[in-house]
Amino acid sequence: MPSLRRVVLERLMRYYRFLSESGAKKPPQTITSAQIAEALDIDPTQVRKDFSTIGLLGIGRVGFEVCEVCRAIRFTLGFDQRHEAVLVGTGHLGSALLAYSGFARYGLHIVAAFDKDPRRVGTKVAGCTVKSMRSLKPFVRRHGVRLAILTTPVDVSQKLADRLVSAGVKAIWNFTPTRVTAPPEVLVRDEHISLGLSEIAYHLTHETEHPSTPHVRAS
Amino acid sequence: MPSLRRVVLERLMRYYRFLSESGAKKPPQTITSAQIAEALDIDPTQVRKDFSTIGLLGIGRVGFEVCEVCRAIRFTLGFDQRHEAVLVGTGHLGSALLAYSGFARYGLHIVAAFDKDPRRVGTKVAGCTVKSMRSLKPFVRRHGVRLAILTTPVDVSQKLADRLVSAGVKAIWNFTPTRVTAPPEVLVRDEHISLGLSEIAYHLTHETEHPSTPHVRAS
Repeated sequence: MPSLRRVVLERLMRYYRFLSESGAKKPPQTITSAQIAEALDIDPTQVRKDFSTIGLLGIGRVGFEVCEVCRAIRFTLGFDQRHEAVLVGTGHLGSALLAYSGFARYGLHIVAAFDKDPRRVGTKVAGCTVKSMRSLKPFVRRHGVRLAILTTPVDVSQKLADRLVSAGVKAIWNFTPTRVTAPPEVLVRDEHISLGLSEIAYHLTHETEHPSTPHVRAS
Repeated sequence: MPSLRRVVLERLMRYYRFLSESGAKKPPQTITSAQIAEALDIDPTQVRKDFSTIGLLGIGRVGFEVCEVCRAIRFTLGFDQRHEAVLVGTGHLGSALLAYSGFARYGLHIVAAFDKDPRRVGTKVAGCTVKSMRSLKPFVRRHGVRLAILTTPVDVSQKLADRLVSAGVKAIWNFTPTRVTAPPEVLVRDEHISLGLSEIAYHLTHETEHPSTPHVRAS
């Protein structure tokens, strides 16, 4: 299989969540590309193309077996492997991510948390004892941790990223607003959960000014 | 001020976070557009254009007063207003969002949480008593709540969105993987926090196959 582009990986994730997070007592055993396309607002041809890329061909009008699709996506994206991560920065967002138990189904396990604030070091956040920054590099090295989640203040993020990379980290999930650079073999994924809030707060604040037209234009 | 496009709002949010989340004991009082541009990987001309849109002009080489920029962005995006929200679905992600105390600085306050699981109704999540779905619509109406955060299973999201809109909600922050449609005056913002994980897990899983080249190509 050739290396897959980010947009393809993201669509595979959307299919996976859609097929695996049904709240129905008896979820359907088969599904068509048209049904998936409709629910996720993706072209049906695109759905079939993505599925064929990961070896799924489907049967005429019956469509695809939900279990088989989920298994193929899990295999492709590596959700059945164990990905250990360190979390750096235990502020509001860091603490929420530590407490979030939904990552395990994607193979992600946060095994240690670090903070530079001496008042936080030694305390427990979501059952995890916060360690001092001094122990970050030795910990990552000793345990062969390959992923770091950055939820630190902006001015230390690059320095930390450099330290993590030199300790052997292969991917950085960057929740800070600053750009973080790393060598090409290290993946840096920026996450901007608060961006949505800019649109929402703006819409709610100005909504009454033009009640008849939507205030936020799609970009 | 004309209505601002989503990309502009998102850039304003990135400036705001960058300027307000410094961990330094003595953050600088002024900053140039070049410094902001460098940190956030945005063109400096774009930064100055965005600032001028919200009435900030800056002074020659001194640049912009950090406090003044933050104040202007808070005002434009409406962070100083109080935006009350209901959260629907108290699973892993719903619980994490309830526990997250970082929304308040953007004016967002989750005032009630709802779940259809009778075993959860009446229990407390992050200090908030979970209410039954039956009380959702009356609650939204009575309190004039204008924002709903959806963290429910996929197959109920559209039905819930319809119910919320008819109760008067003006914005839906959709954390489910399914598309949710609403009348044009209601903003639907999709959030896909798990998309990043597809790229990360894939990279970590396949990284050793081609150690010399980055595996995930930028799209």
